[in-house]
Amino acid sequence: MYKIVQTTGGVCASDGFYADGISAGLKKDGALDMAFIYSENECEVASTFTTNKMYAAPIKHFRAKGDFKTNFILINSKNANAMTGQAGFEDIDEVLSNLENVTNPIMSSTGVIGVRLPKEKIINGLKKFDTTKKEPGNASKAIMTTDAFSKEIALNVTLDDGSSFNIGAMAKGAGMINPAMATMLCFITTDADVSKAEMQEILDEVIKTTFNAISVDGDTSTNDTVLLLSNAKSGAYEAEAFKEALFKVMHFLALEMVRDGEGATKLVTYKITGAKDDREAEIVAKKLSDSLLVKTALYGEDPNWGRIASTVGASGVEAYEEKLKISFDNLCVYNRGELLFDAEMEKKCAVIMGHKKFTISCDLGVGEGSFKAYGCDLGYEYVKINADYRT
Amino acid sequence: MYKIVQTTGGVCASDGFYADGISAGLKKDGALDMAFIYSENECEVASTFTTNKMYAAPIKHFRAKGDFKTNFILINSKNANAMTGQAGFEDIDEVLSNLENVTNPIMSSTGVIGVRLPKEKIINGLKKFDTTKKEPGNASKAIMTTDAFSKEIALNVTLDDGSSFNIGAMAKGAGMINPAMATMLCFITTDADVSKAEMQEILDEVIKTTFNAISVDGDTSTNDTVLLLSNAKSGAYEAEAFKEALFKVMHFLALEMVRDGEGATKLVTYKITGAKDDREAEIVAKKLSDSLLVKTALYGEDPNWGRIASTVGASGVEAYEEKLKISFDNLCVYNRGELLFDAEMEKKCAVIMGHKKFTISCDLGVGEGSFKAYGCDLGYEYVKINADYRT
Repeated sequence: MYKIVQTTGGVCASDGFYADGISAGLKKDGALDMAFIYSENECEVASTFTTNKMYAAPIKHFRAKGDFKTNFILINSKNANAMTGQAGFEDIDEVLSNLENVTNPIMSSTGVIGVRLPKEKIINGLKKFDTTKKEPGNASKAIMTTDAFSKEIALNVTLDDGSSFNIGAMAKGAGMINPAMATMLCFITTDADVSKAEMQEILDEVIKTTFNAISVDGDTSTNDTVLLLSNAKSGAYEAEAFKEALFKVMHFLALEMVRDGEGATKLVTYKITGAKDDREAEIVAKKLSDSLLVKTALYGEDPNWGRIASTVGASGVEAYEEKLKISFDNLCVYNRGELLFDAEMEKKCAVIMGHKKFTISCDLGVGEGSFKAYGCDLGYEYVKINADYRT
Repeated sequence: MYKIVQTTGGVCASDGFYADGISAGLKKDGALDMAFIYSENECEVASTFTTNKMYAAPIKHFRAKGDFKTNFILINSKNANAMTGQAGFEDIDEVLSNLENVTNPIMSSTGVIGVRLPKEKIINGLKKFDTTKKEPGNASKAIMTTDAFSKEIALNVTLDDGSSFNIGAMAKGAGMINPAMATMLCFITTDADVSKAEMQEILDEVIKTTFNAISVDGDTSTNDTVLLLSNAKSGAYEAEAFKEALFKVMHFLALEMVRDGEGATKLVTYKITGAKDDREAEIVAKKLSDSLLVKTALYGEDPNWGRIASTVGASGVEAYEEKLKISFDNLCVYNRGELLFDAEMEKKCAVIMGHKKFTISCDLGVGEGSFKAYGCDLGYEYVKINADYRT
């Protein structure tokens, strides 16, 4: 049996990977705003991008490359290079043409939509890059926009035969709400000896229950990107172990993003069971985690199970009043037609909802479908932040 | 050509209709909380109800009646009689059995979900009803929950031959957000001599561009109800005139509901044109009016057209960066690939967004589909209201 343990080094944990963050003057006060990830060896790349039809120039640029290997990713914050048309696409070519000794470099951006890239600053910034550096903490800080904290993780996987590989990653989340930026970016590096096709297949599967299971503000940005790079340096690989480790990495970062939602005070798991199928369970889970009415009830620590029942009913999936069961953690508040809620139960619920983490379970009693989604509450603070946006 | 003029009397404007509101002790401090609408003649009824699968007991009760005429509607606030199962259904039978000299009475409820009706109070309240009263203002106040003001209207329609009929209505809206209540109810009365089938057909059409075109919090309650009663007393009818007047009545009340969203400071029209078809235009319009990111940008008076473009792209309809055009009122801020926005335009936009009413237009440049939706901003106040909910 393989063994997975946490390690240090973020995106530099894997053999042969380097990263750093620098200040190019895009953010104020000399804050870090540009990062790179570099690999000694050329890497296979697996990827997932936003489903938004207005996907940004960096995503167009990546897709235009076709099949390729790379050893370099350039990332900037403060400007999304989205809605910038052909000019925005050409800006990437121009920026990347200033890089030397790299193969098929990728550019990734996050920030304001509809403004051309500050090319000069970015090109000047490139001169500060030192590809012998392993400073993953700087890189993860440089890609932040409204994130309150940087997000990184690394795991080491030892296989039965004693061989081992690493997976490291960094991510930036969507502020719970921000009129300008709500992009998620995630960069994962590994020295596992995995083929491109298999890596893509595993990424596609793992993303469903990690980044695609979280909701921060229910919107899909123009720039959402997950890139997974493998340089195969370890020579080690085992599919099950790789998949589990990748899940752990992505699940951790996904929950960190929810936890970091602007003004969020609670991380809530929506556990749906008994749906007609997994797809219907997913629809319910996401409807709940996106619902303004549920989110504010969570913030008010109001055990309003009626609002949860109503949201299940509004989701459009097969559901019946007399088959539905609703629980807060292990406390069942409505059981298939039975009104259980009373003053004493309200007190118990209030204790559960006072926690920073809890689970709302809905069993639909219809079939075998299940899904887990993760969301946060919608707090006073985030409107405050946005009310003050222009001042 | 027919002539439509505003008149007084709300749901009592039509000949033979009576209404009043009384206090049954459901709300605190003797506030009005129960209303009736009574007609001398039996009425044909057209109806539309929530699509929520957890639809409330009053809706089950109405549907169980099959085809029928009625002359009485009983409405209570404070309790929705939803998620109350067979017992909730039987509670309605018991309440209505206390009414004398009425035919097939209808009950309609709004308020908290998952609590049995306070039957005794309601049955006692019935004794205060006086069906000779024409007090539509009391009725419209009695059905309010979190509404800041009551909502009613009446129109008189004169046809070419000099004959005339009336349409009157009252409605209650959804608070912008409220953990317990977000139901919309609307009751419309007319003395037009219209057949049940034709009335239903016209209601189904008019609702699409009125109540189904507004968004307050993007949720669909367990109790949403529109009832249209005709007692035919005027003997007058003309389809086009009736449809236009009904549209005016429902459009007015729909916009009043949006204007009364909790904490809302702006009424925004989303005008979508150039979509592949009307259905896709509707999807975009509703995605915009429901978007947290757009709603908070409106509140912050931030002319963030990039967020609008992103939301169009996220809606899933056919759309292209190079074909999209976005305007605030008549000011175009993004024109099919051209970045027009600058500091001067930002100032002009800020003036527009400072108004209580304005229009955001998106032309998708794809086809001939169009739709108009109506929404409000998401203000600081509504979270404040909800943060204080339990204190």
